[in-house]
Amino acid sequence: MGTSNEINKQDFCLWLGHLKLSRIIIVLSTILFLVPLITHYYLSNVENNSIHITHSAHSHTDLPEDLNYLNDLDLKVRVEELYRIKGSVSSELRDMESKRQKLQQELQAYTKNIEQLKFELSHQQTELNRLKISVEQAQVAQKEALEQNTPDLALPKRLTANQLPAIFPMLPRNLARNCRMFSCFDHSRCSLTSGFPVYLYDPDQYTVMHSNWDVDGFLKTTLKQTLGYNPHLTNDPKEACIYLVLVGEALKDTDDISEAFGNSNLPPLDSRALKRLPYWGGDGRNHVLLNLARRDLSAASGNIFTNVDTGRAILVQSTFTHSSFRSEFDLIVSPVLGPPGGDVWQECAPMLPARRKYLLSFQGEIKSNSKYGPTNLYGLDDSDLANTESYFELDRFIVEHLKEMGKSSTADKFYFEFECIPANDDNINTGFQDWALCGTDSSRKFILRDSTFVLIFAPATAEYVSTTLLQARIYEALRSGAIPVILGGDQIRLAYDEVIQWKRICIFLPRVRITELHFLLRALPDSDILLMRRQGRLMWEKYLASVQSTLDTIVAVLRDRLNIPPLPVENVPAVSVFNETFQPTQVIVNVDGEQDESLGPLEPPYNSPAYRRNYSLLITQGHEVWNDWGDPFHLYPTLPTDPLLPSDAKFLGSGRGFRPIGQGQGGAGKEFSEALGGNNPREQFTVLLLTYEREQVLLDSIARLRGLPYLNSVVVVWNSPKPPSPELRWPDIGAPLHIVKAARNSLNNRFLPLDNLKTEAVLSVDDDAHLRHDEILFGFRVWREHRDRIVGFPGRYHAWDLNTANSWLYNSNYSCELSMVLTGAAFIHRHYFHLYWKWLPQAIRDKVDEYMNCEDIAMNFLVSHITRQPPVKVTSRWTFRCPGCPQSLSEDDTHFQERHKCINFFTQVFGYTPLLNTQYRADSILFKTRIPHDKQKCFKFI
Amino acid sequence: MGTSNEINKQDFCLWLGHLKLSRIIIVLSTILFLVPLITHYYLSNVENNSIHITHSAHSHTDLPEDLNYLNDLDLKVRVEELYRIKGSVSSELRDMESKRQKLQQELQAYTKNIEQLKFELSHQQTELNRLKISVEQAQVAQKEALEQNTPDLALPKRLTANQLPAIFPMLPRNLARNCRMFSCFDHSRCSLTSGFPVYLYDPDQYTVMHSNWDVDGFLKTTLKQTLGYNPHLTNDPKEACIYLVLVGEALKDTDDISEAFGNSNLPPLDSRALKRLPYWGGDGRNHVLLNLARRDLSAASGNIFTNVDTGRAILVQSTFTHSSFRSEFDLIVSPVLGPPGGDVWQECAPMLPARRKYLLSFQGEIKSNSKYGPTNLYGLDDSDLANTESYFELDRFIVEHLKEMGKSSTADKFYFEFECIPANDDNINTGFQDWALCGTDSSRKFILRDSTFVLIFAPATAEYVSTTLLQARIYEALRSGAIPVILGGDQIRLAYDEVIQWKRICIFLPRVRITELHFLLRALPDSDILLMRRQGRLMWEKYLASVQSTLDTIVAVLRDRLNIPPLPVENVPAVSVFNETFQPTQVIVNVDGEQDESLGPLEPPYNSPAYRRNYSLLITQGHEVWNDWGDPFHLYPTLPTDPLLPSDAKFLGSGRGFRPIGQGQGGAGKEFSEALGGNNPREQFTVLLLTYEREQVLLDSIARLRGLPYLNSVVVVWNSPKPPSPELRWPDIGAPLHIVKAARNSLNNRFLPLDNLKTEAVLSVDDDAHLRHDEILFGFRVWREHRDRIVGFPGRYHAWDLNTANSWLYNSNYSCELSMVLTGAAFIHRHYFHLYWKWLPQAIRDKVDEYMNCEDIAMNFLVSHITRQPPVKVTSRWTFRCPGCPQSLSEDDTHFQERHKCINFFTQVFGYTPLLNTQYRADSILFKTRIPHDKQKCFKFI
Repeated sequence: MGTSNEINKQDFCLWLGHLKLSRIIIVLSTILFLVPLITHYYLSNVENNSIHITHSAHSHTDLPEDLNYLNDLDLKVRVEELYRIKGSVSSELRDMESKRQKLQQELQAYTKNIEQLKFELSHQQTELNRLKISVEQAQVAQKEALEQNTPDLALPKRLTANQLPAIFPMLPRNLARNCRMFSCFDHSRCSLTSGFPVYLYDPDQYTVMHSNWDVDGFLKTTLKQTLGYNPHLTNDPKEACIYLVLVGEALKDTDDISEAFGNSNLPPLDSRALKRLPYWGGDGRNHVLLNLARRDLSAASGNIFTNVDTGRAILVQSTFTHSSFRSEFDLIVSPVLGPPGGDVWQECAPMLPARRKYLLSFQGEIKSNSKYGPTNLYGLDDSDLANTESYFELDRFIVEHLKEMGKSSTADKFYFEFECIPANDDNINTGFQDWALCGTDSSRKFILRDSTFVLIFAPATAEYVSTTLLQARIYEALRSGAIPVILGGDQIRLAYDEVIQWKRICIFLPRVRITELHFLLRALPDSDILLMRRQGRLMWEKYLASVQSTLDTIVAVLRDRLNIPPLPVENVPAVSVFNETFQPTQVIVNVDGEQDESLGPLEPPYNSPAYRRNYSLLITQGHEVWNDWGDPFHLYPTLPTDPLLPSDAKFLGSGRGFRPIGQGQGGAGKEFSEALGGNNPREQFTVLLLTYEREQVLLDSIARLRGLPYLNSVVVVWNSPKPPSPELRWPDIGAPLHIVKAARNSLNNRFLPLDNLKTEAVLSVDDDAHLRHDEILFGFRVWREHRDRIVGFPGRYHAWDLNTANSWLYNSNYSCELSMVLTGAAFIHRHYFHLYWKWLPQAIRDKVDEYMNCEDIAMNFLVSHITRQPPVKVTSRWTFRCPGCPQSLSEDDTHFQERHKCINFFTQVFGYTPLLNTQYRADSILFKTRIPHDKQKCFKFI
Repeated sequence: MGTSNEINKQDFCLWLGHLKLSRIIIVLSTILFLVPLITHYYLSNVENNSIHITHSAHSHTDLPEDLNYLNDLDLKVRVEELYRIKGSVSSELRDMESKRQKLQQELQAYTKNIEQLKFELSHQQTELNRLKISVEQAQVAQKEALEQNTPDLALPKRLTANQLPAIFPMLPRNLARNCRMFSCFDHSRCSLTSGFPVYLYDPDQYTVMHSNWDVDGFLKTTLKQTLGYNPHLTNDPKEACIYLVLVGEALKDTDDISEAFGNSNLPPLDSRALKRLPYWGGDGRNHVLLNLARRDLSAASGNIFTNVDTGRAILVQSTFTHSSFRSEFDLIVSPVLGPPGGDVWQECAPMLPARRKYLLSFQGEIKSNSKYGPTNLYGLDDSDLANTESYFELDRFIVEHLKEMGKSSTADKFYFEFECIPANDDNINTGFQDWALCGTDSSRKFILRDSTFVLIFAPATAEYVSTTLLQARIYEALRSGAIPVILGGDQIRLAYDEVIQWKRICIFLPRVRITELHFLLRALPDSDILLMRRQGRLMWEKYLASVQSTLDTIVAVLRDRLNIPPLPVENVPAVSVFNETFQPTQVIVNVDGEQDESLGPLEPPYNSPAYRRNYSLLITQGHEVWNDWGDPFHLYPTLPTDPLLPSDAKFLGSGRGFRPIGQGQGGAGKEFSEALGGNNPREQFTVLLLTYEREQVLLDSIARLRGLPYLNSVVVVWNSPKPPSPELRWPDIGAPLHIVKAARNSLNNRFLPLDNLKTEAVLSVDDDAHLRHDEILFGFRVWREHRDRIVGFPGRYHAWDLNTANSWLYNSNYSCELSMVLTGAAFIHRHYFHLYWKWLPQAIRDKVDEYMNCEDIAMNFLVSHITRQPPVKVTSRWTFRCPGCPQSLSEDDTHFQERHKCINFFTQVFGYTPLLNTQYRADSILFKTRIPHDKQKCFKFI
């Protein structure tokens, strides 16, 4: 309706824009000056003419009469008559004047009326259009519902075994040696929908050790404790899919008397005790024997299953020989050198600079006196031994070469220690040809923090596929951000390598290529060094750092082998701030100014589909889940990285719920406002408000949401311990409104993964933010194209402090480059709420609570860390704060000081600053574009 | 300077926008009507008054005088005098008037002069600013150059071996069985910088077969031919790293007479002949024995190395037993079932719809009469045989279960053929327990095209790690887009699985989980089905489809194992359109209107660094190179997906060449215009113009580029066979200008990977496009954030044709959603130029030539196909075509018809429509924002 007007106005404006104001004023003045003069001239002419006429009439007829023929009486009578006439005429004139005024007033009233009616009409028209679209949408949805021939998927019911394992005959040793999942694992206990129940033999109750051995006490306690947090743990052996048995780290009971009887050479593990385990089932199928190294990193303790009949059980440890390791069945793990659980970032070194003091370092010692002895334990024949000898030869060459390299004249610095200083007696007994560690954990950390790369030798005999020492070196290197360079890397395997891509973390170099080592290390650019260091730290934190992560990873890897999805992530139950009986008052409110544009259909709440990819995510994106952005320990309803369908899919019967623009024909503003279009199916968003004791401000903000298309519901997190006053009249905005009680007043509550957030898109807004409907909807559309990023309105950036070294400043000035979008007015994928609580170290949430500040900075850090992308700033029609609102938190100086500190603290926790810059803003496509009269813009005002 | 004006005007417009036009007109009319009347009234009063006064004067003084006291003579004299006075007064008035006019003219001239001077001043100021920035930038660059302590990396010199392999003693069989790269491969022949030279024993010259066998003739010819295209091939055995020997597919020479002598049971391969190979070196190290199956898919021909002493040679074939396969040493390949090379898309089925007629299909036949016979060839003991028996049991259960499933009452359709109809005699002799293929290639294709999933049985005996039949089934399934479901998938390995992630392509299901099959298949959503199908096709096209791709892949996988980078991709040499002696005339031109804003420093050409990640790309992004966007066969100077440094890196001494905004402090317009900022180091862009016989238009376009910051050089592709006239006066724009001769007139030349494109960013423009400097620079900045996408100005979209079924229309209307950005004005990463010629099927470039159209659509398809992202539209200040230019190609209707056809044809070639939609445009951050007076906007006008 308003299109052509709109265009004319714009044209006019554009034309105006091109003119100088001064010229306009000149022209206008000229007109105003000339027109009266001209008018005057003509009007004067007319008057003069009439005067002339009257004059001539007088002069030729009346005047002689007056002068010559009339007497005094006549004159008097006539004058009186004239007075009378004048009187009546003037009274008549007064009457007419008053009538005229009355008429004019009436006219004005009518005009006003008409205008009001016109406004009403256009309003009604908009409303009608909106309703029409809504009806159409409803029809499409209904049609879809009818056509849909597959039911909506949801989490399936758990289907678990319900009997104890039957007793099978023992497996012959030669077959056990070839165990693979298909031949030795009982899949029938682990249905796809079973949820992968894991049973733990209580290590205090069941012992499978010979009498003079026992499992490390710390491990026993920690294992029970940390597995308690694992949702897969079950107490019911009947339903269990796998059974965990802790068999190590085994420690010799030093004051045991059995030594006196000469049976001190017994291996730790007792085969018969294993078979006595209540659910062993004769052959130990689905049993997982955990031998976790912690204190004793020698290979002897690392491989305790030699000569033990373990049947069909899966072996988990850090040391394996090629002959004992059953690929895709046994599991190589890292030793558990970390804390039981919790934050580990304090142990890590900063990632920057890319190149540290030493290009390469090595600390280790090898004892050659026990050359053949222990190795032969594992049954090498003569040719193998000859082979081993040539390996030592090569190692000697390598050490010589490295020593040369250290002395070379390049600018690169090396730190090599081939004999421990001070001598390290603890590690003499490495049991076989492996480089022992020098010094202490902290002395090694000191060197590793200064090393860009760290050299790690594969075991000197090629028979080992992994050793505990090797894995421990990897662990320490990743913790300190030294990139492992594994000489002989093609001989060994690293922990969980069926899921972790170690190639992105370590450099694997064949021994003979030692001559190319220096060249290769120099050839890696800073960006790749940092990529590897970051990846190493990511994997270390997720899978190696603590006992908790080690156990979770073991369970997850075994689960992953069976393609059983993880258990769904837990949401925070939304508890209403009202008690059950209380019904808050709702009133209908009228909001002005937001309804003058039809922006989309008003539909009943439509929740985002959830848990559609339970069985396909790990197939198609398993690699990314383990190695990139994913969390392999939990199943999420949806992910920001879920794949797109091709654009023809929606027209060829694949995928449902698409709302292509103009039914697929595309179009400008009108068609655009009627459908979501884009690459994703229809969806809605939730508005999430965090509020604290500003009731009227909140009510106004909620009221403004009335009539907002695509709004699923509004969730208010009530941060105040004081419940809302029962007299409050809540606005009825046509969408469900949930007021959720927060456990305590914390800004972290802004990102609570509440169970009533039913859409992927969550619009997080401050209680005092004033966003217009068109801004919100445009933001929603932009977010739909960048579901993995923060998409919002107020941009900020982190600036380098040129005055103090190495620190950042928070900056909210007008800027052409930004790196953060405040979460006081931004769309965020619900998924990040989970990550905010599960992935972020506790220290960050603590800092947010300490300052009552910075939760938005933390969220920006998190998202940029995961995506390596900046946020997206969306255009806003005006400033977004409400002008009359009381001063918000963010005004005072302390607030800013805290935010500076936050950025620098978070940088410390992450090890680097994940924020990235962006230099543009998303605007609607036809904004400020001249378009034909029969087209509408995408939005009227933005 | 213009900020406050700008704002006032905008406010005024806004205010205007809020008024109804009608009201304005009413008010204006009222004013225009009233003012004259009022004026008239007052003026009349004044006149009347004066008249009155004159009148009264006359009546009381002059008139009596006139009438009573003056005579005729006096009157005459006075009148004459009055006339004289009047004459002199009027001439005086004329003089004054002319003087006034002269003065006014002078004044005008002065004013004009002053304005010109002012303009000049501001211009000079801008120029000065620009120079200042340029000087600063030069200083920074110089400082960097001094500080830089590592030399720039470039492609290293090739370092190859220069002697033939020495003769080593034969390797004992038991050691050969454990061959791994570190124990059996001679790395000393393959330096990192060697370029991986590959030597091929001419299959016609060297025969390693027993006399009654020969290698398939087709293979011999094709191998020689296709390896000829592989840049690694060398004719010098001295420098070779690996030696290829074609040993199969071996075919029995049927009319050979040796059969008569009873030695017909000889295996095809002759160990002694192998040892006679001239570079065998005693143990065959670095030799690769290729046994490529093509016609005979039975296991017998698939595994021809049984009982042959192959020493340290690497075996390449499709059939391996677990005991014969040496993991990470031997190579499982797919049989070579495709054409020698060239386009293969015709053989593929469309990807959509996601769900096809049959949910699952299977065609195959197993013969049980030869149950134990051939299997035992491979030395199974009794327990293995018992095992085998239980496998058959399971298979029978599986077949029964499947038959049940086919009869089930769900809506899903199945196609199962467990006995071939018609019976297929060819395949009876499968040699062991593997399901034989039914029917012909085309009859199977017919079913596969209609199958969403296809069932593939792992070989019925678990001893096989791979069989040719299995690999052939995978090949056929991927070709037709049926997703392979491999029952017993945990027993087998697929081709090149050290680099290809098969989990994203196939579903691997343990046999015992057959009961969960139907549930699992139903649980996969359309998006994941399409993802798997697309991935399967991608991998099939790249690595399996033709003999060429198979051989390239074998070479690449072996090369990848050694972490040797591929050979650099070849650029197209840019041949100047002028002969060497001719020096084109250059003139300095003045361009108006482009210089009124300082947009960045003018620096000498600075080329993008190249080949920095030669040795790190495959380490950190190898997975993506093989499985996603990459090309593992070539080394590229840079990639659009090269990793970013963290934002603190530039301040902590990592990474060079960064130009942070405000030295890191950030800032608004002024600081923004002085530095590139962003997440990438400094860089420039190249302008690439394609032109055809529109010399003046071209010269004007080039001239407009004068003074454009960050411009590296201008490359003009001269598509006309007629060279430019020697009289042409080329504008000197301060940057190098190359006019490149095109081999022939083709629009594909727009994307020639010319060797003089020295920057990653290429601005591709039509010769008649008129982009302003600020638009170009803003586009460049946006491109720097989306280096992997097309970032440009004119947006278009593909619309679904609602009138005819299943076809697209090209649409250039104003739209709020777009899916293409025309390459007539867009930034594109140079990398895509290579892919346009190397990755796109020839059919697409042929279509472009046929229509002389659609090259831009092809590029949009390509980029969206690789990135699964839409292009980015950048704001433009005005329409981008020059108004006075001659009508371009794109105006007439045929042009549009062709473009419709192109979209549909390209969709056919790609198998789906890769284009994706976007609903926003990139605008500069402070555009249309009120900012304080002391700040500048990011750009003045956009």
